[in-house]
Amino acid sequence: MKQLYHVLGAKQFAREELEQLFDAAREMEEIVARGGDRRHEGRIMTSLFFEASTRTRLSFESAMHRLGGGVIGTENASQFSSAIKGETLEDTIRIISGYSDVIVMRHTEIGAAKRAARVADIPVINAGDGAGEHPTQALLDAYTIRKEFGKIDGLHIAMVGDLAYGRTVHSLSYILANYQDVMVHYISPNNVRIPDNVKKYMDEKGIRYAETNDLDSVAGSIDVLYQTRIQKERFPSVEEYEKASGQFIVDAELLDRMRKDAIVLHPLPRAGEITEDVDSDPRAAYFRQAVNGLYIRMALIDKCITESRG
Amino acid sequence: MKQLYHVLGAKQFAREELEQLFDAAREMEEIVARGGDRRHEGRIMTSLFFEASTRTRLSFESAMHRLGGGVIGTENASQFSSAIKGETLEDTIRIISGYSDVIVMRHTEIGAAKRAARVADIPVINAGDGAGEHPTQALLDAYTIRKEFGKIDGLHIAMVGDLAYGRTVHSLSYILANYQDVMVHYISPNNVRIPDNVKKYMDEKGIRYAETNDLDSVAGSIDVLYQTRIQKERFPSVEEYEKASGQFIVDAELLDRMRKDAIVLHPLPRAGEITEDVDSDPRAAYFRQAVNGLYIRMALIDKCITESRG
Amino acid sequence: MKQLYHVLGAKQFAREELEQLFDAAREMEEIVARGGDRRHEGRIMTSLFFEASTRTRLSFESAMHRLGGGVIGTENASQFSSAIKGETLEDTIRIISGYSDVIVMRHTEIGAAKRAARVADIPVINAGDGAGEHPTQALLDAYTIRKEFGKIDGLHIAMVGDLAYGRTVHSLSYILANYQDVMVHYISPNNVRIPDNVKKYMDEKGIRYAETNDLDSVAGSIDVLYQTRIQKERFPSVEEYEKASGQFIVDAELLDRMRKDAIVLHPLPRAGEITEDVDSDPRAAYFRQAVNGLYIRMALIDKCITESRG
Repeated sequence: MKQLYHVLGAKQFAREELEQLFDAAREMEEIVARGGDRRHEGRIMTSLFFEASTRTRLSFESAMHRLGGGVIGTENASQFSSAIKGETLEDTIRIISGYSDVIVMRHTEIGAAKRAARVADIPVINAGDGAGEHPTQALLDAYTIRKEFGKIDGLHIAMVGDLAYGRTVHSLSYILANYQDVMVHYISPNNVRIPDNVKKYMDEKGIRYAETNDLDSVAGSIDVLYQTRIQKERFPSVEEYEKASGQFIVDAELLDRMRKDAIVLHPLPRAGEITEDVDSDPRAAYFRQAVNGLYIRMALIDKCITESRG
Repeated sequence: MKQLYHVLGAKQFAREELEQLFDAAREMEEIVARGGDRRHEGRIMTSLFFEASTRTRLSFESAMHRLGGGVIGTENASQFSSAIKGETLEDTIRIISGYSDVIVMRHTEIGAAKRAARVADIPVINAGDGAGEHPTQALLDAYTIRKEFGKIDGLHIAMVGDLAYGRTVHSLSYILANYQDVMVHYISPNNVRIPDNVKKYMDEKGIRYAETNDLDSVAGSIDVLYQTRIQKERFPSVEEYEKASGQFIVDAELLDRMRKDAIVLHPLPRAGEITEDVDSDPRAAYFRQAVNGLYIRMALIDKCITESRG
Repeated sequence: MKQLYHVLGAKQFAREELEQLFDAAREMEEIVARGGDRRHEGRIMTSLFFEASTRTRLSFESAMHRLGGGVIGTENASQFSSAIKGETLEDTIRIISGYSDVIVMRHTEIGAAKRAARVADIPVINAGDGAGEHPTQALLDAYTIRKEFGKIDGLHIAMVGDLAYGRTVHSLSYILANYQDVMVHYISPNNVRIPDNVKKYMDEKGIRYAETNDLDSVAGSIDVLYQTRIQKERFPSVEEYEKASGQFIVDAELLDRMRKDAIVLHPLPRAGEITEDVDSDPRAAYFRQAVNGLYIRMALIDKCITESRG
């Protein structure tokens, strides 16, 4: 049985590995600036998206191309004919394994990536599994913070929005738990608060955090405002949704009350929760953040292929 | 801010640039005959199709591969998960820009390509924007005419069918307006006549044209018969549609009345408006026209990447 | 007119060609083990799937990438916009021909691949045409048998399940008809028996076969058990389906009654007709079979491109 390096969840990363990964991502930036390289020419990545996520998929596929590799895949579960015929995920993965060198997988069910990794004989990268984890998003978020501030230790970070169902804030919390003197503010409507299991993890790791539904009170003290989408369907009525979401709009006015060296992040897509008048402010880091996804994913694909060979 | 060369509409092309483009397309024919080359190895094209257009998409993707490049993309808007979540086109383009070196975009809305070009930091090629323009189709049409006749100046060209909604005839008119002594016959049912703004443009450029709904009367004198599909849904009743579309069938009988050195073009797909007995006539140039799309698109992709670099 | 080598149906293969193909597939295994090669760099394959078949498509696309080539294509007919607009298959193929070097085509209609080959000026590989044929599946099945036993001559092979509509058992029968002293057991519910035209072909070729609905009676004597899915929708009622399908489950108990050197095959996906407790038995050859699809398809693509050139 050969050794495989998978990317399944944010908790698998200890600080030293994170630092190595961020250094590798930095190198990838330089490689892309030079037009990519051909180090994985002849290698194939399978994009196995059982749920559409065009942005994430394109980012991974671009990453593989920039490393010289090829891509096969499927855009959407509804196209995956074997699943329709009743095939188990395990059977699908066993067979797909034979066709490529790394699988990038998005699935609707929690734990799907782990199930895949159990039977695959090539590395698996979790590109989101239902309400579970989205580790590559969290890694690019953390990479962006380190790049913007030169460090993560000591920063005050507010995560804003739907913290119950937004898997990226869970994964990002697990990553941040590796750093020193971090303070996390969880800011959400009352019905979509950060889950207990995340708080428990932070407690175990000795990370300070606070919960509130008052963004204004912390706006002036934080280094990072991590905004997310609030999903309408979580609320009992449109009125309650509008009341809740209206509390957490990031606009030019809020920005005025923030520190001059703070940054605003968002996993994107946004749908009104950051207004367009924020875009031109240098503290609006979400488009810089988006392109960092390419470098992190290049570094992860490279690591999966390299550390799983030989 | 770097200089970007976009392909947004047919009006952007002056005669000199057209001639250079056609020369480049001719070179691409030779390159394809030799099996393609690798000049854009490591470069990536994004196929961003918010509306399915398999033929056009495959033609662009083939073009990029023949130049050695890679392709990422999405077949269909309904798959584009960020748009479904309410993301603006501008946000999508800002992010996709970071993943590749050129964007080929098909959209359902007029002006979408221009909006994309405004925020992209890589070149954008308009592969059709709603009832707006389809410049690469018009360029391949004009290239076909020049190749078949060795010139465009002085030719008599009939455009037939739905001239109101058929965007290719608009774009082709703008291209032809660069040439000398061209005469255009617009031949359509009364309810889908060529729009005033196209006629106004032709007037300004001093191009002769005539409007009629009588194909037979001009068949004997024209050099180029550019046939298009008449879309059933434009007509108030099936009877009226059948009466209108029946007037404009190109069949062996019509061909008998045409000049021996004339040609028949069609942007394809066809649905009965050119009968199959025409296919074997050497004047049936529509399949030769289709493959010219590959060479023109290779030339355009090459130009976009080359002139946007450095 | 240039010579084209197409793969349209299983009957086109005589024994000598099969042996050459199997030797080529064996070489492809070694090439994949070394990380693929670049022999078809710059060549393009079009994946033209008018019906979703993710597994088969990915297998072909992986094959082309392992040979250094590029891939363009469409996942699903419902996306194929020209067909929606009423274009004939022949027109589609004439145009697509200009974009690539080989077409792999899955279609819902019997005979579609042959119609495509008639107008294409590049080679066509039939990846399944309705209830017609699926020759590349049959070739990988036969390759698996030869690899597992070192021969095909003299083997006793049971085909189990829906033999009326399961096109792979038809194609496999035609391949097996090239070998000596083969004995085929057709084992099916009464309403989905092997068609007369297949039996007639076997008679003409002098191949021994028997029909039964009793799997248990032959389990102890066969070398190969080729299991297939029984499709629920073929049966008048759920009760009759369950009665029929229940007869033909391959489980650990059945395996106990089989020869120690027998193998179990399945074209996959499975949906309960081979239980998971069989997977760990060395006689369960269906996952080895699946990966053989890659090598056979590499050999076929290579043959199509090489023998159609020059």
